[in-house]
Amino acid sequence: MVINSDRAAQTEREVEESILAKLKGNAVIGQSGGPTCVINQSLVGIVREALKHEEIQGIYGAAHGVRGIMGEDLLDLRQESDATLEAVAATPAAGLGSVRMKPTADDCARLLEVFKAHDVRYFFYIGGNDSAETAHIVHEMAERDGYEMRLYHVPKTIDNDLLVTDHCPGYGTAARFVAHAILGDNLDNRSLPGIKIDVIMGRHAGFLTAASILARQHEDDGPHLIYVPETVFSTQSFLEDVAGVYERLGRCVVAVSEGVHDAQGKLVMQSSEVDSHGNVQLSGSGALGDFLAGLVRDKLADRFGKLRVRADTLGYLQRSFPGFTSQVDAEEAAEAGRAAVRAAVGETPHGSIALRRLDGSTYRCETFVTSLDSVAGNTKSLKSEFLKGDNDIDSQFVDYVSPLAGDVFQTGRLHGKRVTKRLS
Amino acid sequence: MVINSDRAAQTEREVEESILAKLKGNAVIGQSGGPTCVINQSLVGIVREALKHEEIQGIYGAAHGVRGIMGEDLLDLRQESDATLEAVAATPAAGLGSVRMKPTADDCARLLEVFKAHDVRYFFYIGGNDSAETAHIVHEMAERDGYEMRLYHVPKTIDNDLLVTDHCPGYGTAARFVAHAILGDNLDNRSLPGIKIDVIMGRHAGFLTAASILARQHEDDGPHLIYVPETVFSTQSFLEDVAGVYERLGRCVVAVSEGVHDAQGKLVMQSSEVDSHGNVQLSGSGALGDFLAGLVRDKLADRFGKLRVRADTLGYLQRSFPGFTSQVDAEEAAEAGRAAVRAAVGETPHGSIALRRLDGSTYRCETFVTSLDSVAGNTKSLKSEFLKGDNDIDSQFVDYVSPLAGDVFQTGRLHGKRVTKRLS
Repeated sequence: MVINSDRAAQTEREVEESILAKLKGNAVIGQSGGPTCVINQSLVGIVREALKHEEIQGIYGAAHGVRGIMGEDLLDLRQESDATLEAVAATPAAGLGSVRMKPTADDCARLLEVFKAHDVRYFFYIGGNDSAETAHIVHEMAERDGYEMRLYHVPKTIDNDLLVTDHCPGYGTAARFVAHAILGDNLDNRSLPGIKIDVIMGRHAGFLTAASILARQHEDDGPHLIYVPETVFSTQSFLEDVAGVYERLGRCVVAVSEGVHDAQGKLVMQSSEVDSHGNVQLSGSGALGDFLAGLVRDKLADRFGKLRVRADTLGYLQRSFPGFTSQVDAEEAAEAGRAAVRAAVGETPHGSIALRRLDGSTYRCETFVTSLDSVAGNTKSLKSEFLKGDNDIDSQFVDYVSPLAGDVFQTGRLHGKRVTKRLS
Repeated sequence: MVINSDRAAQTEREVEESILAKLKGNAVIGQSGGPTCVINQSLVGIVREALKHEEIQGIYGAAHGVRGIMGEDLLDLRQESDATLEAVAATPAAGLGSVRMKPTADDCARLLEVFKAHDVRYFFYIGGNDSAETAHIVHEMAERDGYEMRLYHVPKTIDNDLLVTDHCPGYGTAARFVAHAILGDNLDNRSLPGIKIDVIMGRHAGFLTAASILARQHEDDGPHLIYVPETVFSTQSFLEDVAGVYERLGRCVVAVSEGVHDAQGKLVMQSSEVDSHGNVQLSGSGALGDFLAGLVRDKLADRFGKLRVRADTLGYLQRSFPGFTSQVDAEEAAEAGRAAVRAAVGETPHGSIALRRLDGSTYRCETFVTSLDSVAGNTKSLKSEFLKGDNDIDSQFVDYVSPLAGDVFQTGRLHGKRVTKRLS
């Protein structure tokens, strides 16, 4: 269900009723899940919009999401100066602290108890689909309990895997980082040729890995191969792909999602081939990259001799590198926060904020409200039009991601007119 | 030996002789070793200065360093437009291509053969101490041969380990990247607490790892522990250090050089503890980080229960990430190139360009010429005043590195006044 937040024309009577119906009380804001570089833009967007609405009295921040609410660990955000809020907005990672916690029924009962004790009538939860689910569960419990509350989920994820919305705040900046990381790595690989494997975040959705396509500026630029979880990864095809590129260019840059898996859906890092190498970790680890590099080194040695093969796992920098933010992403994250407050004090007491891309040659997006349950619990992947075979991304995806990531560094390359040889 | 390049006052006769002594011929420029983000600034600095001196006729770029010279693979850099040169200067990684190759005596004979065939009288080699050694060997061979040549080494390395010079072009930008990577990672770790290990480049010198100290802005900011190759790394002390920080802060961010080693000088990644885990690679691999993370997870579980431990290896982004350059570093890299040409057409026919930091409250550096053999073959490490025990860096180092890395992103942090609890 998609509800546009644009207010319909109201009669005077309706306006009056709407004023009478103002729900007075305090607001709690929480941040949840893996941080992003712009999650604090949403936080500050909510605070600044909330300050404009007199029905919102206390503006509290929950330390580490629902865990902080359960422990009554609330920060008084009205005490923060405008300068602090501005600095926090531009700072990566959750300023309030984050949490990975799916509250149980008992936990939700406790949340409601705390909300009642502090007269909390507005709850804004910034996070991914799990956070939408939390907001949804609390909403249902409050309704059963007859406790009037406005609950909003504000989208955030570098994975870009939320349903309904065109894209998620946090993704654009992470995509920007990945594009530049691969762009630099391609230049490095062109300087000192070899085979380079870069492992990019994304367990189920390949949006972030696909953003590496923005690194291509010349015909021979990497990434030469892109593997995402939306297709089946076969180590045999991978080796053939790499050999083909290496034969053609004398080098190869590979962008691969951490979530690549075989036809049975088994992660490459959980397949028996890997288990036989010893204990491997699946997160915050270089295991997949090292495994693939070892595979290339071993299996292509017969054909090419000793190869220079390296792997990097881009890791947490993708979601936390400071000072390299996409402006569009930062603005949309702030606007998503503001839109949630406007909607919550308006006609739609609960929901999730989504983004809709408008038609036209210039990129523009507007926010709208979608229901909590349309976002809760589920995720989306790259649509098939964005895939190109099983080892590349279609150029259509460039149109999708470019405005979100912002301008990409333009590389210079020597024309390279050769001097005539004089020796044999 | 340090020779100042400032020209002494010359008599008219000397000036006349110096003009008469102008060595006419072509110039070759090469790039060598691991690329940096500003190595092309030096390339373009050399080209632009060479264009001003009529005794330098052809200006050739060697594709992939000495390998390109041996194969007569030379690019005519006079054919490049000013716009191309400007774009190339700002682009990371070696625009001419790089190489890791220490030429043999036979190779050097071939280099000289090519130089003679193309009337090359000027050779500028941008690289680390190995490149200085190459220039030194070619210089000696040319001298024995009676072939007049001017040879200059132009310093470049992210490791910052060259002798004589205060610091190396390329280091400032890499230090800037590392400082921001750890700054962002510390914020991420503060959002979702746990133990985070970041592996930073540097086999023998800890300059790059030490730059992580710039990430500290608040008392509890990471990196909480910094390990460099200049001290002995003991896994037992490491575990105790981590446990101590975790007990105090409930989290811990560790910056560790890839080159950490035990008291016998054995790399941690070559010790028997690691070998028993299977085959490990020493470069372009996440093995050290994964090993240390596994160690913490296993050995501290008794004390703290299940810990959230993650490791990232910053990898090639440290030397290739685009659009995040230190301005001072870029300017000094260009100036080192220009200084080499000025010196080569001046009174000092061969040498290596070094940087000297001038006294005063504002950072300023000047270039000077040092002999090729003072730089060739050897490296330097962090001096003992920069070390603080065996797990930290002294604040004196901040004064050294700050002007090179440039301004660091200023983080915002909420004041965080707590709301009074109302429940038990």
